[in-house]
Amino acid sequence: MGAAMSQRLREQGFDVVGWDVNGDRTKALADGGLQIAADARAVAADCEIIISIVTEDHGVRRIFTGPQGFLGGDVNGKLFIEMSTLQPMTGRELAPLVEAKGARLIESPVLGTIPQVRDGKLFALVGGRIEDLDRARPVLEKMTRRIAHMGPNGCGYAMKLAVNLGLGAYIQALSESLALGAKQGLALDQMLDVLQEAPYASGWMKSKIGVMKGEKPEMTLDIRTLRKDIMSAVATGALSGVPMPLSAGTLASLSAAVANGYGSGDLGELPKFVREVMLQNF
Amino acid sequence: MGAAMSQRLREQGFDVVGWDVNGDRTKALADGGLQIAADARAVAADCEIIISIVTEDHGVRRIFTGPQGFLGGDVNGKLFIEMSTLQPMTGRELAPLVEAKGARLIESPVLGTIPQVRDGKLFALVGGRIEDLDRARPVLEKMTRRIAHMGPNGCGYAMKLAVNLGLGAYIQALSESLALGAKQGLALDQMLDVLQEAPYASGWMKSKIGVMKGEKPEMTLDIRTLRKDIMSAVATGALSGVPMPLSAGTLASLSAAVANGYGSGDLGELPKFVREVMLQNF
Amino acid sequence: MGAAMSQRLREQGFDVVGWDVNGDRTKALADGGLQIAADARAVAADCEIIISIVTEDHGVRRIFTGPQGFLGGDVNGKLFIEMSTLQPMTGRELAPLVEAKGARLIESPVLGTIPQVRDGKLFALVGGRIEDLDRARPVLEKMTRRIAHMGPNGCGYAMKLAVNLGLGAYIQALSESLALGAKQGLALDQMLDVLQEAPYASGWMKSKIGVMKGEKPEMTLDIRTLRKDIMSAVATGALSGVPMPLSAGTLASLSAAVANGYGSGDLGELPKFVREVMLQNF
Amino acid sequence: MGAAMSQRLREQGFDVVGWDVNGDRTKALADGGLQIAADARAVAADCEIIISIVTEDHGVRRIFTGPQGFLGGDVNGKLFIEMSTLQPMTGRELAPLVEAKGARLIESPVLGTIPQVRDGKLFALVGGRIEDLDRARPVLEKMTRRIAHMGPNGCGYAMKLAVNLGLGAYIQALSESLALGAKQGLALDQMLDVLQEAPYASGWMKSKIGVMKGEKPEMTLDIRTLRKDIMSAVATGALSGVPMPLSAGTLASLSAAVANGYGSGDLGELPKFVREVMLQNF
Repeated sequence: MGAAMSQRLREQGFDVVGWDVNGDRTKALADGGLQIAADARAVAADCEIIISIVTEDHGVRRIFTGPQGFLGGDVNGKLFIEMSTLQPMTGRELAPLVEAKGARLIESPVLGTIPQVRDGKLFALVGGRIEDLDRARPVLEKMTRRIAHMGPNGCGYAMKLAVNLGLGAYIQALSESLALGAKQGLALDQMLDVLQEAPYASGWMKSKIGVMKGEKPEMTLDIRTLRKDIMSAVATGALSGVPMPLSAGTLASLSAAVANGYGSGDLGELPKFVREVMLQNF
Repeated sequence: MGAAMSQRLREQGFDVVGWDVNGDRTKALADGGLQIAADARAVAADCEIIISIVTEDHGVRRIFTGPQGFLGGDVNGKLFIEMSTLQPMTGRELAPLVEAKGARLIESPVLGTIPQVRDGKLFALVGGRIEDLDRARPVLEKMTRRIAHMGPNGCGYAMKLAVNLGLGAYIQALSESLALGAKQGLALDQMLDVLQEAPYASGWMKSKIGVMKGEKPEMTLDIRTLRKDIMSAVATGALSGVPMPLSAGTLASLSAAVANGYGSGDLGELPKFVREVMLQNF
Repeated sequence: MGAAMSQRLREQGFDVVGWDVNGDRTKALADGGLQIAADARAVAADCEIIISIVTEDHGVRRIFTGPQGFLGGDVNGKLFIEMSTLQPMTGRELAPLVEAKGARLIESPVLGTIPQVRDGKLFALVGGRIEDLDRARPVLEKMTRRIAHMGPNGCGYAMKLAVNLGLGAYIQALSESLALGAKQGLALDQMLDVLQEAPYASGWMKSKIGVMKGEKPEMTLDIRTLRKDIMSAVATGALSGVPMPLSAGTLASLSAAVANGYGSGDLGELPKFVREVMLQNF
Repeated sequence: MGAAMSQRLREQGFDVVGWDVNGDRTKALADGGLQIAADARAVAADCEIIISIVTEDHGVRRIFTGPQGFLGGDVNGKLFIEMSTLQPMTGRELAPLVEAKGARLIESPVLGTIPQVRDGKLFALVGGRIEDLDRARPVLEKMTRRIAHMGPNGCGYAMKLAVNLGLGAYIQALSESLALGAKQGLALDQMLDVLQEAPYASGWMKSKIGVMKGEKPEMTLDIRTLRKDIMSAVATGALSGVPMPLSAGTLASLSAAVANGYGSGDLGELPKFVREVMLQNF
């Protein structure tokens, strides 16, 4: 996502400086003509508005507070737009650290994947102060078709987790449906055909029919990352008194998939994992 | 459903004889001009093709094999079209009993609710012999826009359970999403607004937005019946070696809703139950 | 278990004829001096009281009703003692088939493993008619320290599943406890030491401390068989309206263990599987 | 627990000053002859070693960092012994706040209930620095039969959650076993009789047989508090990558029990709730 975003912003006329924790990816960015900083700290030093997008909560903490992190230098007056999918409490933890350095932080996880980045058609779910969002708008608007202010820091992440929890449930439900049917003697194609007429059929389901039939997936979200998102949702729920038996069941299945080496597969491959690996005769 | 079906078939020119285990409903059918039989046995005696639709597996067994049941008299040469949502093994159990009496049984649970019955726009998921389905077509076609032959007896029910399992997951996932967000400070309207842009948003979700906002529901499926369907799915899965942690989680939530008196509410009211009853502070 | 039982009964003065679906095991029995029958049907023909103990429900159906099965010949007046761990409905399904042939069936799954067989110290959980149990007593008493009549056919199996459901929960709970602690920096030995003082510590837990520390297990019940038992319990529960979210969670974990190749390990190895395979960092 | 602890320590010759957030309980303590402080801050000001035991994480934060909390005054050189059952991260969060004020914090949740307090027979699970534990020993030893140092701050709480997770699993497993059996026609007394011979039978199970038979419970742990503990365990697990499908199932059941008004019942009443409220016919 990060590479696509930097590309999009450059096309829209912004001066962009980039850095990736992964050296290979940094090199690829440089080869693509992007100006590269030495580390996260240097990015923050060079820029007025700093966008981050990483995989998970520990990573984002390192990038902000680690030795060569964003907050290692003078960031007075700067604005951070954090676009990862994280736990709400991470947002609430980072915001005061950023403010203590005289800067501001909004979170802005998005709905959409790389094609939507390219077309500037993401949907941003923003948490943080409205005045900070307003300052971020000129940048965010180049990447999005819609921006929703969900509330103070943490609320953007909470909304994103709430959306992805449903995505995990959807694919795990399809996995259980197809596994149930397979064991009862139904053919996969036939089941997928009927499921497309279920009341809850969706454009997304349609886009995953191919991979569910065994075609090579067009990757949108890998199983490992979805597992991490559901884990964050379950943790956030449990911490605040929300029993989530469905999500905990989804998490068990995704964890088993990762344990079996399916982690880097597309989430559309989960039904195959459940059907081919988890089903067991007496 | 039964009343709407008999009405539809009469409009389409069939001679229909009806009976309902519930006396009040039988009276209402009679008041509507339907010819009424004394019991299930008499229905089978009077008709060449017999349609049944009831709530659950024990009920259907009683109607077929009970003292005044379908199979209590001479049913040689008749065709039964069983349209309930049942466990596959119930279909496999009934078919030989029916055949032992010289009759035939297909199952034909449907996707769709009362408006689709009225318009003849159901989707029939048929299990049984293809020749028996062919004999049923003149009747089924008046009620459906599509008929899919899923396989031998049991396969129609299996497909219906596979579809409804997803419906239960969908509403329980929305319940967990909205509960998670509510505890994190998000407003309900705001969340529903975003969820309609989730990749898995569907026409069905849209149709339930009102009830999820607290409006009086237009009933499509009550929580008690959905719970029964998910219970059937979990049982069918467990009997055949399919671990279903997500569906088991859904079942726990639906069971808690019924235990709290939400059983006759529309399934669109489940999120409210979860949010208002199951959430607990420390 | 079967070999140990036949040995025990011979030691106690009974004439025993044996057969095993597995040729190697049959040969081992013969090498041990046991008289061998050609098939299950021949066992039933030769004996007055016929004991069966197999892994699962499909197997027991084959042995009773298959081509060379118990019920293939004349079994008038005979008594079957079925000692497997099965679903209650299997017992209720077999009993009338046996009675239709003029014979009787009680089920008698047991608590205890091979050492208890050798010492005649099993605990029998009997389902069936009391008069049939009385007829079985001279045999059962040689193998047991206690016989409990739980009710009609099915009730013995139900009680055994209820016991094993708890065993699955116990080992999965230990797995989750140890995994939780491991991720929080606690040492395994230290945790096991404390857990032995938990209010629910039991002799069984003590007997599994070694394998939980990584020692080679003394096999008592393999993970695959426990998974099958929990699957039977979940199916029996779901069929009769019992939501079992804990058991469904246990089943998901045991299924993942089997999928990862841990199926033939002792159930005491489940914590290791959870800790080493299912735990995942972000 | 707090009242019993202050009583025990006074009997053992310590000067004790007490305070309870609940005015009625404070009055009862005063009536019992305990010297009472105005608020938590005053307790900390008056004492060298300060013990706290409360229900949950938010409560303990208020008592430490709230306006009249422990850390509101000069606590330089003092030692806090926190004895609640909390999330490990709460311990890790509080310790540096306490140290910043020149004081020290160990956590010491315990195994045991009020009778063990009275007899000085608790088992303390300590997290924190070993030197601070050594300083706490003269006090802790008067209340305990055993003290285990589990590791740095957080590790004591983690161990306690790991123990209680098993307790929740144990009672929920018994609930599912008894519900399964009840639906299969087994008598409650008969089932409890057999379960006492299950391999995992324990002294604790024996002590709960009476309440499981319907007798008035001797309260040891209420359902609401156990639910909170399991919620903390699930949250701690999810935050660190431990999928806990069994515990999530337990949490769903305990949450349903609290939602149905069983929250202040003893955990031994959970089986009754599951059997009488959660079971549903078709």
